[in-house]
Amino acid sequence: MTRELIERLLKGDRRALARLLSLVENGTPEGMEALRRIHRFTGQAGTVGITGATGSGKSTLVSQIAKEFHRRGKKVGIIAVDPSSPFTQGALLGDRVRMQELCQDEDIFVRSMASRGALGGLAETTMDAMALMDAFGKEVILVETVGAGQDEVAVVQATRTTVVLLTPGTGDDVQMMKAGLMEIGHIYVVNKSDREGAPGLTQQLNHVLSLAPSKAWNPPVLNTVATTGQGIAPLVDAIQRHWKFLAESGLGAADNRQRIRHHVLSLVQQKFLQHTLARLRANGTLESLVNAVTRGELDPQSAAEKILDNLFAPSKTQPSN
Amino acid sequence: MTRELIERLLKGDRRALARLLSLVENGTPEGMEALRRIHRFTGQAGTVGITGATGSGKSTLVSQIAKEFHRRGKKVGIIAVDPSSPFTQGALLGDRVRMQELCQDEDIFVRSMASRGALGGLAETTMDAMALMDAFGKEVILVETVGAGQDEVAVVQATRTTVVLLTPGTGDDVQMMKAGLMEIGHIYVVNKSDREGAPGLTQQLNHVLSLAPSKAWNPPVLNTVATTGQGIAPLVDAIQRHWKFLAESGLGAADNRQRIRHHVLSLVQQKFLQHTLARLRANGTLESLVNAVTRGELDPQSAAEKILDNLFAPSKTQPSN
Repeated sequence: MTRELIERLLKGDRRALARLLSLVENGTPEGMEALRRIHRFTGQAGTVGITGATGSGKSTLVSQIAKEFHRRGKKVGIIAVDPSSPFTQGALLGDRVRMQELCQDEDIFVRSMASRGALGGLAETTMDAMALMDAFGKEVILVETVGAGQDEVAVVQATRTTVVLLTPGTGDDVQMMKAGLMEIGHIYVVNKSDREGAPGLTQQLNHVLSLAPSKAWNPPVLNTVATTGQGIAPLVDAIQRHWKFLAESGLGAADNRQRIRHHVLSLVQQKFLQHTLARLRANGTLESLVNAVTRGELDPQSAAEKILDNLFAPSKTQPSN
Repeated sequence: MTRELIERLLKGDRRALARLLSLVENGTPEGMEALRRIHRFTGQAGTVGITGATGSGKSTLVSQIAKEFHRRGKKVGIIAVDPSSPFTQGALLGDRVRMQELCQDEDIFVRSMASRGALGGLAETTMDAMALMDAFGKEVILVETVGAGQDEVAVVQATRTTVVLLTPGTGDDVQMMKAGLMEIGHIYVVNKSDREGAPGLTQQLNHVLSLAPSKAWNPPVLNTVATTGQGIAPLVDAIQRHWKFLAESGLGAADNRQRIRHHVLSLVQQKFLQHTLARLRANGTLESLVNAVTRGELDPQSAAEKILDNLFAPSKTQPSN
């Protein structure tokens, strides 16, 4: 079944893409098998991560960017990630629905994700979803997320180009600037630039960026009004300029290696944990160690080491430490 | 040196506590050794996690709770966690300084943490810091964090009692309610209750909570004005009532086991990753596999499996799968 689904995916069948995204998101063996098989068809898509506070007009902006790429003849996919909702999924459903509506006429594939993968983080699941869209034939993949927590930063950093979105007149933006977003953006966008505080915020951003040490790529600050489409074409120009820069400087290849290294190590950790849990459940070790820690007879560090010794035991007579 | 520091810690020496917190936060071997040795002196402190949006008056409220516990004869420690800042640490420094000032006269120990541990998550580092404060002799430990991301939720859930703070007239609060905070709180607090929208927000919270299935503990909604101290005593009453409930129902012991289980498994993962990275760096396996994935000759899943096979190799002739 996986084989047939993959064949359909590679031929550009949207339903096969939707089905495989679900299989991957749910951590099924079929999904994992699909990821294995499609890997050699990936690596071509240009990817963009877009983050900003709620209420910054992000969904509208992302829709506009998607449409502009579409006008430039690109096949576009959108992944909307909502990591702030570990319990009630779908908190931002309204936004997603609006985005879906904005994009439905133009063959722009939109996918929402609110959950981590079976065992991995949200960034890993996002990478897997991007791989599927890439193999499907999407040439541009936009990943949208909310806020500036560690999860959100990990998500946008799984893409080539990070766009940080701010809006005038919201305290949130100062908060985001403080919270480290000034270090991660390749492009800064002041949306709702028809509002009063826009020139001030733009100036402030330029000032903060000017304090950073000069780099090979100096992040531009752009102005948009997503609702009218103003400034969208220059923004898409800047994204394409950044991709060109990455390709020509060789930094793109280095970034890519770094992402792959991180992804492989995450998978190692996931698989190890799966293996460990299965084994510990089977032999009851975990519960007896937890009991000992609860009673204060053993500390958590030593309990963890006993588990590792046990796992690696057959291969060693001495714990390697 | 560790032994002497621990002796001083157990005698209530503040400088020893500060030094050990740094050693643990930086993931040093001395810190790990200290955690091992103090484990049997922990488990007594009552712990409270407090989360709310920025601007909700959280630092002031936490200071007031600390002072009220102090008035009730308890030794109090505060851990202020700032997970939203993976890059520039200390974004909320101003708040922390204010809190420190509020608490300095009353022997309330305040510690700020902005970084994850060496390899573990912020929740794990917070648990370690709580263990040190507990062994030091703090009877009440307040853990404060901002927002409702996965990191923040993990941090507050490392404590016995989760207090969720909201303020009238901020869209943030609706966002937080949507984002799943209605499932994690044991106590809800409407701060700045002298403001216009307070009765409405209180009513709204009570309504949302009334929709949840009835449980053994039904979270109360309390009103405070942290700046004047109004409502603080009833809030501290509610926290103590929750602790009593946990003790009498046996749910506290079950929660504690669950936290210990999670902590031990996190440590297993950390230590495994450390071991793996050291070995992979030594033999160059990781780089050659990353190269193969980059060239599309190997998929990330298979690369991860090769690494695991390699690690467990001496003990098996067949990969167990």
